[in-house]
Amino acid sequence: MKPELEGPLYQQIANRMEEMISTGSLRAGDRIPSVRHLSVQHRVSVPTVMQAYALLENRRLIEARPKSGFYVRARLANALREPLAAKKKPSVSALNGFSSMLEIARDMLDPSLIPLGGAVPGDALLPLEKLAQISSSMARRFTKTAVNYDPAPGCLPLRKELSRRSLDWGCSLDADDFLITLGASEAIHLALLAITKPGDTVLVESPTYYGTLNLLAQMGRKVIAIPSSACDGMDMDAVRKAVRSHPISAILVIPNFSNPLGSFMPEANRRQLLEIAALHEIPIIEDDIYGDLPHDGPRPLAMKALDRHDQVILCGSFSKTLAPGFRIGYLAAGKYQKRVVELKNVFNLGGPALPALTVAEFLRNGGYDRHLRKLAHTYRQQVCKMRETVAEVFPEGTKVSNPNGGFVIWLELPEQADVLPIFREAKSAGISFAPGPLFSPDGHFKNCLRLSCGFPWSPQLDAGVRTLAGMIARQIS
Amino acid sequence: MKPELEGPLYQQIANRMEEMISTGSLRAGDRIPSVRHLSVQHRVSVPTVMQAYALLENRRLIEARPKSGFYVRARLANALREPLAAKKKPSVSALNGFSSMLEIARDMLDPSLIPLGGAVPGDALLPLEKLAQISSSMARRFTKTAVNYDPAPGCLPLRKELSRRSLDWGCSLDADDFLITLGASEAIHLALLAITKPGDTVLVESPTYYGTLNLLAQMGRKVIAIPSSACDGMDMDAVRKAVRSHPISAILVIPNFSNPLGSFMPEANRRQLLEIAALHEIPIIEDDIYGDLPHDGPRPLAMKALDRHDQVILCGSFSKTLAPGFRIGYLAAGKYQKRVVELKNVFNLGGPALPALTVAEFLRNGGYDRHLRKLAHTYRQQVCKMRETVAEVFPEGTKVSNPNGGFVIWLELPEQADVLPIFREAKSAGISFAPGPLFSPDGHFKNCLRLSCGFPWSPQLDAGVRTLAGMIARQIS
Repeated sequence: MKPELEGPLYQQIANRMEEMISTGSLRAGDRIPSVRHLSVQHRVSVPTVMQAYALLENRRLIEARPKSGFYVRARLANALREPLAAKKKPSVSALNGFSSMLEIARDMLDPSLIPLGGAVPGDALLPLEKLAQISSSMARRFTKTAVNYDPAPGCLPLRKELSRRSLDWGCSLDADDFLITLGASEAIHLALLAITKPGDTVLVESPTYYGTLNLLAQMGRKVIAIPSSACDGMDMDAVRKAVRSHPISAILVIPNFSNPLGSFMPEANRRQLLEIAALHEIPIIEDDIYGDLPHDGPRPLAMKALDRHDQVILCGSFSKTLAPGFRIGYLAAGKYQKRVVELKNVFNLGGPALPALTVAEFLRNGGYDRHLRKLAHTYRQQVCKMRETVAEVFPEGTKVSNPNGGFVIWLELPEQADVLPIFREAKSAGISFAPGPLFSPDGHFKNCLRLSCGFPWSPQLDAGVRTLAGMIARQIS
Repeated sequence: MKPELEGPLYQQIANRMEEMISTGSLRAGDRIPSVRHLSVQHRVSVPTVMQAYALLENRRLIEARPKSGFYVRARLANALREPLAAKKKPSVSALNGFSSMLEIARDMLDPSLIPLGGAVPGDALLPLEKLAQISSSMARRFTKTAVNYDPAPGCLPLRKELSRRSLDWGCSLDADDFLITLGASEAIHLALLAITKPGDTVLVESPTYYGTLNLLAQMGRKVIAIPSSACDGMDMDAVRKAVRSHPISAILVIPNFSNPLGSFMPEANRRQLLEIAALHEIPIIEDDIYGDLPHDGPRPLAMKALDRHDQVILCGSFSKTLAPGFRIGYLAAGKYQKRVVELKNVFNLGGPALPALTVAEFLRNGGYDRHLRKLAHTYRQQVCKMRETVAEVFPEGTKVSNPNGGFVIWLELPEQADVLPIFREAKSAGISFAPGPLFSPDGHFKNCLRLSCGFPWSPQLDAGVRTLAGMIARQIS
């Protein structure tokens, strides 16, 4: 739920309490203040408080216990189990069948559907006005700069801002350590070109972002998909086995709030992965696109912060936080930097200056940190709401991830479910979601799906989730 | 010379006459109107006309003949010979040595140098104010569009404008036939990826644009460089021999005002090339980046206009006419369209919307055609002035191209000249130019160079050309 600052007073009170519940300040079973107590404390009338509590009951967040007062309800989602890493032994895949998935990826992003599919932030969550204002002012002030080529590494003001921010990632990178790219996609493409060649094998998480699988397929690279859990990511034993038994050219990993699992790789595992990579001289490509979106506490460090031997190539973007369509990503490739800059220059000479200048100015003077706090909080509430609803309406036995950052959740349905026919059925009913096989090189995860929580909760969204749950229930019954 | 609309009256008259001379309305040997006649005709005083004629004498454009009046001087540049295609037998090159040229390409674009190097339009020739205005207004009006992904094929309004314009190219393409790219560079990259694989051989003009050679080198493609003349481009006999003796995967050609030769491929040759390509089933990549810049008459047709069998992949951009830094190019790949759209989506999902929307609006309501007429006229005058100056100050035996479009000229110096040491000497003296070997896969053309006429003539530019000529004269003396 987006915190609403407007609306009637009772609604404001209810929203505030819902926030306390969703953030854990009030927990299941906690007694909430009596109507009279709250009325005195907040200097509002007793009927207003009663209205607020009625609304919270209605939202199934609190319950009245006779002669005792109101209590926070046990949350359904807390009872859900998280999906574990598959036990399957990983093997090399040439991604031959993967392209059949692409039709689905396209359909999934159809803007006319209820948007549970694409991992895209809803417009309403983005600072449109501020971006318009900065963008328009940059266009007036910097046209002379913007009409001229800005060859790679690109936009110095933006690279300076990234350098400043890299301290928060634990990295301390210079402006010259960065290359500005067209989103993280181009960053990962260039990194892969710099360190692998056709036929090479790359380790990836399983499940992992279908865009990356598609990129690897198009580039003629093979993959080994390492079983990963929604809790802590890659199974380190599987990684060890894979590097011992196959020549691996690169490891591609999303340590902070992976897509689609939302997993967070613990520091111990990060250190292990770095050790393994060092031993076998395998470069690591770190995709940190969700790193700016922790649900709690400070920004997590990048894995690159632990990188003592220049093994980690860091990729990121502002597509999940500021403006997907501005196509502003970055790449810090360490010893491969010269090569990736050269490749970018050869392929397209660098991107246009204005979107980069706009993002630089937003980072510098636009209140990016304030925006991030608000956004991460909203994503958190939307993820909570989605998990609650899933717990309420999806078939028994459904497991759901419980991410501490980002805005996607991963569902594992009972084994007999098959999401591909449901995808088509849901599409006809005007609903999109991301079916599990999209995240596997070999069509696994047919009983899994990813739901995006990037859009503010709405009756339409709610209805979409319920309809989807109904389709699945019918299929497996 | 940029036509000046301001300045004293005598100067305006002189500029007008210079224009008539440079456009050929007045030719070498023509008698120009008498002072008295012009004074009456233009209703200006006799001394003003005399001042104007003195200025034209000073500019070496007219000469007084005793008791007869003023005549247009014989133009030095007319006496220059054009470089012919090399007689060398073409062979396959793996472009192994080409990367050593790249340091030079970088130095050449150093903005602190007198800009005879990069084929870049000077700021002063671009519609900065109008672009700033449109760009700023687009940023205000379309932020909501611009923050969202605009996946390939990208910006529909721009593709509609391109569709309209394609009639001028003789093509009649639909909006759906286009893919918006990051400049023509990305367009050519995607086209090459769609139709060739590593190790394949591509036919190119010789000399040809170093960016393309570099791209082919980085992609692991080989080339056969077809001797080409500054007059009519590729030697068709050499093409025939090459396709008969080697398997060729693509032909890459700039039929309209090639870079660096400025050659224009005659229709008969275009038809021959299409026939050869059809016979051997070789796709043709047409780079039409200079097509909008004829010095005279209507826009020349694209070679694709003659394409009956969907053999030609058309690439273009607005980098030479409107705003290099906006990175707006396009690709119409015919039967390969689905593939190039897919590749673009995989690599970077599409470019940012605002620069594309700005160019679309400029094409629609910004007076692009008026701008083009003015720009092409200016380029023509700058090319004329450059050729005149070269004729005056470069060593005897220098051959110079005489392009009918675009804004670069190609010089062939006496055989003993070696431009690479001169490149370094010129750089120290604050002057850039494009040395010949940059345009060859194997370091040929060491006695050749390209001069850009993209910047308005100035005393600084004039001094640069003279200094350069002096260096060459000293070297070969």
